[in-house]
Order: sequence, then C-alpha cells, then structure tokens
Amino acid sequence: MAAEIVNPRTDTDTFPIDPVFALHRGGKMEVAATVPVRDADDLSLAYTPGVAKVCTAIAEQPDLVNDYTWKSNVVAVVTDGTAVLGLGDIGPEASLPVMEGKAILFKQFGGVNAVPIALACTDVDEIVETVVRMAPSFGGVNLEDISAPRCFEIERKLQERLDIPVFHDDQHGTAVVTLAALRNAAKLTNRSLGQLRAVISGAGAAGVAIAKILVEAGIGDVAVTDRKGIVHGGRDDLNSVKRELASYTNKAGLSGSLETALDGADVFIGVSGGTVREEAVATMAEGAFIFAMANPTPEIHPDVAHKYAAVVATGRSDFPNQINNVLAFPGIFAGALQVRASRITEGMKIAAAEALAAVVADELSADCVIPSPFDERVAPAVTAAVAAAARAEGVARR
Amino acid sequence: MAAEIVNPRTDTDTFPIDPVFALHRGGKMEVAATVPVRDADDLSLAYTPGVAKVCTAIAEQPDLVNDYTWKSNVVAVVTDGTAVLGLGDIGPEASLPVMEGKAILFKQFGGVNAVPIALACTDVDEIVETVVRMAPSFGGVNLEDISAPRCFEIERKLQERLDIPVFHDDQHGTAVVTLAALRNAAKLTNRSLGQLRAVISGAGAAGVAIAKILVEAGIGDVAVTDRKGIVHGGRDDLNSVKRELASYTNKAGLSGSLETALDGADVFIGVSGGTVREEAVATMAEGAFIFAMANPTPEIHPDVAHKYAAVVATGRSDFPNQINNVLAFPGIFAGALQVRASRITEGMKIAAAEALAAVVADELSADCVIPSPFDERVAPAVTAAVAAAARAEGVARR
Repeated sequence: MAAEIVNPRTDTDTFPIDPVFALHRGGKMEVAATVPVRDADDLSLAYTPGVAKVCTAIAEQPDLVNDYTWKSNVVAVVTDGTAVLGLGDIGPEASLPVMEGKAILFKQFGGVNAVPIALACTDVDEIVETVVRMAPSFGGVNLEDISAPRCFEIERKLQERLDIPVFHDDQHGTAVVTLAALRNAAKLTNRSLGQLRAVISGAGAAGVAIAKILVEAGIGDVAVTDRKGIVHGGRDDLNSVKRELASYTNKAGLSGSLETALDGADVFIGVSGGTVREEAVATMAEGAFIFAMANPTPEIHPDVAHKYAAVVATGRSDFPNQINNVLAFPGIFAGALQVRASRITEGMKIAAAEALAAVVADELSADCVIPSPFDERVAPAVTAAVAAAARAEGVARR
Repeated sequence: MAAEIVNPRTDTDTFPIDPVFALHRGGKMEVAATVPVRDADDLSLAYTPGVAKVCTAIAEQPDLVNDYTWKSNVVAVVTDGTAVLGLGDIGPEASLPVMEGKAILFKQFGGVNAVPIALACTDVDEIVETVVRMAPSFGGVNLEDISAPRCFEIERKLQERLDIPVFHDDQHGTAVVTLAALRNAAKLTNRSLGQLRAVISGAGAAGVAIAKILVEAGIGDVAVTDRKGIVHGGRDDLNSVKRELASYTNKAGLSGSLETALDGADVFIGVSGGTVREEAVATMAEGAFIFAMANPTPEIHPDVAHKYAAVVATGRSDFPNQINNVLAFPGIFAGALQVRASRITEGMKIAAAEALAAVVADELSADCVIPSPFDERVAPAVTAAVAAAARAEGVARR
C-alpha cells in the first residue's frame, strides 16, 4: 500500500500518477444553486427580505417545507464507517469517498440529491439520535456501510422515530436486485420461485435482507449460513436477528455446514466472501442458479459455476449479470420521494424488483437476467413502480 | 398571512402568483457530480472497486480526506431555527429556506459548498454533540440563526471540541462588516477608531460580537444597551455573557438608558430593532456615524439620521451603505478552508474587515463606506486576507 499512499501526495493535475487518485482529487461532488443570484433583486427574492414570507408560510403549514425547499428531494447518506465495502471498520473520514460516490449515483441515476453524512459515533442510540435530530433537513435517509447486527437495530429504531423513508441499502438494495435476477432466472427456466430451494452464504446485512425478501416473494425454501453453518432454531449461539431469521427460514430443518445445505439446492446466493469448493457446487440440483456476489473475488468463480449452473451472476462488472445496487436505490428513493412516502414498505421493494426484472423482457437469456446499470430504462421503471406501490400501500402523502 | 399561505398551494409554473413562492418552489439548490459517470469504466474509478484504494489511503493517512473528498470545501450551515431572521423561533423546517439561501450565497460568492442542517433539538449540549458527530463530513461549521445566549455557548463548546472552523455568522459576519464600514467612515472623516465612542443597541448575538471586535480593533469606548438600558457591572440582572461584556466595554462607566448613552456619542450601531427618538439622535456628537441595521425597519430612518450624521448605513439594499453579511462569510470560510485553518481567530476576522474596507479605496465617500455585495473584488480580497492571517496566526495547516 505504501506506494499508493505516497502517490496522492505528490500527484498534480499535470502528473496524475494514479487515475483513481487523480479522479478523486478535490472530491467528486459539489452544491449548485438552481436559482439566479445575479443582483440585488435576485437576492431580495432568494434571501432576505423575500425569503421570510416562505419561512412564515412553512411555520404555519409545515408540509409546505416539501414544496418550497429541497427537502423533498434530498437524501442523507449516513454511515459510521464500520463496514465499508470489504474494508471493514475504517472510520467515518475514510468512508467518505464511498459516500460521495453513492451520492453522485443517486443524482446520476435517480435525479435525487444526496449528501454524505459520516458520523463520528458507533453506538446504536447515538447514531439514531443524531439522525433523528438532523432529519428536518432531509426527505429520506439512506443508511450505508454500517456493520451487522447494529445496522438492523439502527434502521428499525429510525423507522419508528421518523416519518420519512429510512433504507439500509446494503440490506434492501442488494435484496431487491437479487430478487429481480432470481425472478428472471426462474422465468428463463420455466420455474416458479415456489419450486426453488435457495442457500444464502452470509447472515450479515445483505444475507438477512435477501432471505426476508425471498420468503415474502414466495421462495420454496431458503437456508442461510453463517461462519458456524446453517442458521436454525436449535443453535444456542444466535443473536436476536439470527433467531428471528431461523424462525422464517430453513423449513426443511437443515443443520450442518454450507456444503450440507448446498446438496440438492437450486440456488446459491453468496454475500459472505469465502470460497465454496467445486465438489460442493457439483452437488447442487440440475439447472441451478449461482449468484456469487462477493467482490472482488466471487465465492464461486464464474468459470466453475458455469459447469454446474444454468444461470450465473456476480457482483463484478466484467462478467455478465452484475448484481449491482445502483439498479435499485436511485429509483426506489426517487419513487418514494415523488409521492412523499412516509416509509419504504416490503411491497415497494418487491414492486421495485418486479419492475427491474421486467426491464429485461425480450433480451432475457442466461447471460442477461438483470439489466446493465447503464440501461436508461431502469430508473424510470423502478421509480414508477415504487411510487405506485406506495400509493397502493397507503404510505404516499401525495 | 392567509392569502400568502393559500397562494403557494395553488400556484403552478404557469401561474406564479407570487414571485417569491414561484422562485422557491422545489428549493434553491442541488447536488451535482464533478466527475463523469457515463459507463462501467467511470463507475469502477469513481465507485467500486477503484474507490477502495482511496478509502484505504485515508484510513492510513487521515489528513488525505482533505485532498480526496469534498470535505475541505464543504461547510455545514447549522441552525435550530430558534432565531430566524426577525421571525424568532419558527423551528427547523421553517428555517430551511434561509439556510438554503445561505448555502447558495456561500457557493455564489465564495465558491464554497454548503449544506443546510436544520436540527430538531434546541438543548445546547444536544446541538453540540450532534454537530461533533457529523463533523467528519465537513470542513467547517457555520452556525446560523440560533438564539442568544445559547449561541455563544454552542459556538464556544464546538470550537473546543472540533479542529475545523466554527463560526456563528450572526455574530461575527455582522461584526466584521460593521468594523469595515466603521473603519472607512473614520478614514473619511480623518479620525481614528481610538477617538470614537460608540453605542450599540442590542446585546444579542450581533451586539456582543460587534462590541468585542470594536474593542479588539481599538475603539475609544463602546457601551452596549439591552432592553433594560446600558450594560454595566453594577447591574444584578446580567447573564454570564453580559457580565463578561460589562467587563471590557463601557469604560466611561455609564448607566441608564440608551438615550443617556447616545448623548455625545460618535457612533450608533443598531442591531436590536426598536426605534430611537429623533430628539435622542440629535444629542449625538458632531459628525456622528449612524449604522441602523434592523430589517426591515431601521432603528433610525436614514432620512432622520442624515440630519445629524456624517455617515449613515443600514441593513437594507435600497439605501446606500448596506451592512450585509454576505460581504464577509463567503470569503472568510473560503480563506480558512483554503489553508485548512483549524479555527477562525480574532485576527482573521479583523484581517477580513480590513480587506473589506480596503476594497472601497478610491470610491470612499459618505455614501460608500462599504462595497456592494455584488462587487466582485470583495470575496477574493477577503479570502486572501483571511488565508494570510491564518498563516500568520499559526492556525493554517497548509
């Protein structure tokens, strides 16, 4: 790493030694005015004395804040820096490049403004209090790269306290895109979700959320594994999140290792890192789906996976079928904000997955069960579906 | 107010009934990417996997966060909505139009990014904790429209806890511009600050800060008045801020009313609202300066003030000599951020005032003791002076 750290100190615009550092110099985002401030007249409308009228109106009719400020189209991207990418607990400052990246993806793909808020605290209640206090300024909260199991409690408490969408993307963004890919894989092979038995390797943020959405979407069965093997109610080492997980997964009552679970399984979903032996992959059912999403090293290399599976997906952009959260979160927030949803319901997430799956339509093939992140049809489709679902579920406020 | 509140609900882009509401619809600002995200290659540099390198570098050398994120050029505009304009305690949501206005002025005049953070708490320690927790994301904190005397304690505690500039603009922005105007008024009439006795009407955020900067700049004497009259050590109704104020102001040992203080005074500075009787104005010394800065109604109308004063200033844009904070805060933060100052010192504020005063130079006249907010020389001059002062005072970090 040493060379990479020395480089940025000495690079300049004329000598961009490393293209990544050159690109990140000065950050990746800015704030811009959307109204003119050219002269005193402009100033008297946008600022004092004119602005007082708008403040007074909001003080008397609080919901006008959504019409006359950027609140209804700006999301806080909140992290504590404890689970950043695969890097782990690197702290709030070091997480900022990711949060800025997230923020510009929100804008680029969803037209949603987003502001990185990296917090210098890791206590659940401190994070919750801090976000609640700053919430008047934002139309939504995207939780990001917060370690499990704290992330579950933080999200739940914030959802209880706030009347704006709170969405932990590492959980639900991943879950939505995974469900979309799985729906299309099933469609391609003329199966229903109810016919499939899935195995999820990883019981962190993504694994838990994927298990939940698959059950809600009607999966035949799903077993989740952590480092100690299959999560089941007979284990005495489960935290409360995994105990709850055990209650609605693993109907087959499996116990033992990941390899035990894989035997005869139709679907492998990897969100853990680690590696699965080829011998275990070989025991999966005919026409299996392998979604090996660890980055940069998939749990099962696509070359191996293709020997045994009908459909293979990864988290990488250099293989077909990239499971990429950017397919989901911009449209999900855009749709929720458009109708001023008070929360993002399970129904809205499933609607997002269905809309995302439907974008593929005619192009559906083993190498195309999920659209490209740059497919321009994606965000509008997800946005519209989420907005409609919010209305149908009674959480829309306009 | 009723008509003004109903209007915004019914206006549309085609029928902008009120130009203020039409301008504010949807808010006044947005976030924008400063790097391209057109394809997978861009994404792999700006986001995963490339971004991990930048995160790792910052985790190992924390100050690199200033080089490779927007932190070093973004300010949080923090309020609790307790003292918004002249409207008082209207709450965080209703304050947002002002905070957005402030944010776009930061960008327009200083090239500094700014994000409105309106807090749903008013307790001093809660505000301090919240800002400390979010500070990793920001290069500076501009406190705004927080009521006195809480604002003093919040600013002091934040300055103790943080190593980035924390600046309550209602105090120091106003003080800097007032000092600049006073310097030029003195220069115009061939007097030194040491020859002047000033009276400040108002012992809130602005009044206290103006008194402090005038004393530091060498004013002959200054008395501050609140609703109960002149602040002096003999009063038993003073809070700690006013007790401290009494210790370094009012060398003449005056007691009694504002009118008592005005008798023979050289300078009136109004930051209180209220009205001063013409009879009292008439008792001021020959060649007085009257800065009646209450908005929208100056404490002394300029037509009256001109009968008795050599130089008249107000807070309004429709009279000459507008004392407008926008002359100071963008350049002060731009200068402080440029050299990554750990704080904004008294010396930096005085340097800002001197640079601001010097912009007028050849144009100096009774109707031009302070530049127009739209004078393009202002922000670069203030920025350079503040950066240089930060270096001179040893608080610059590059």
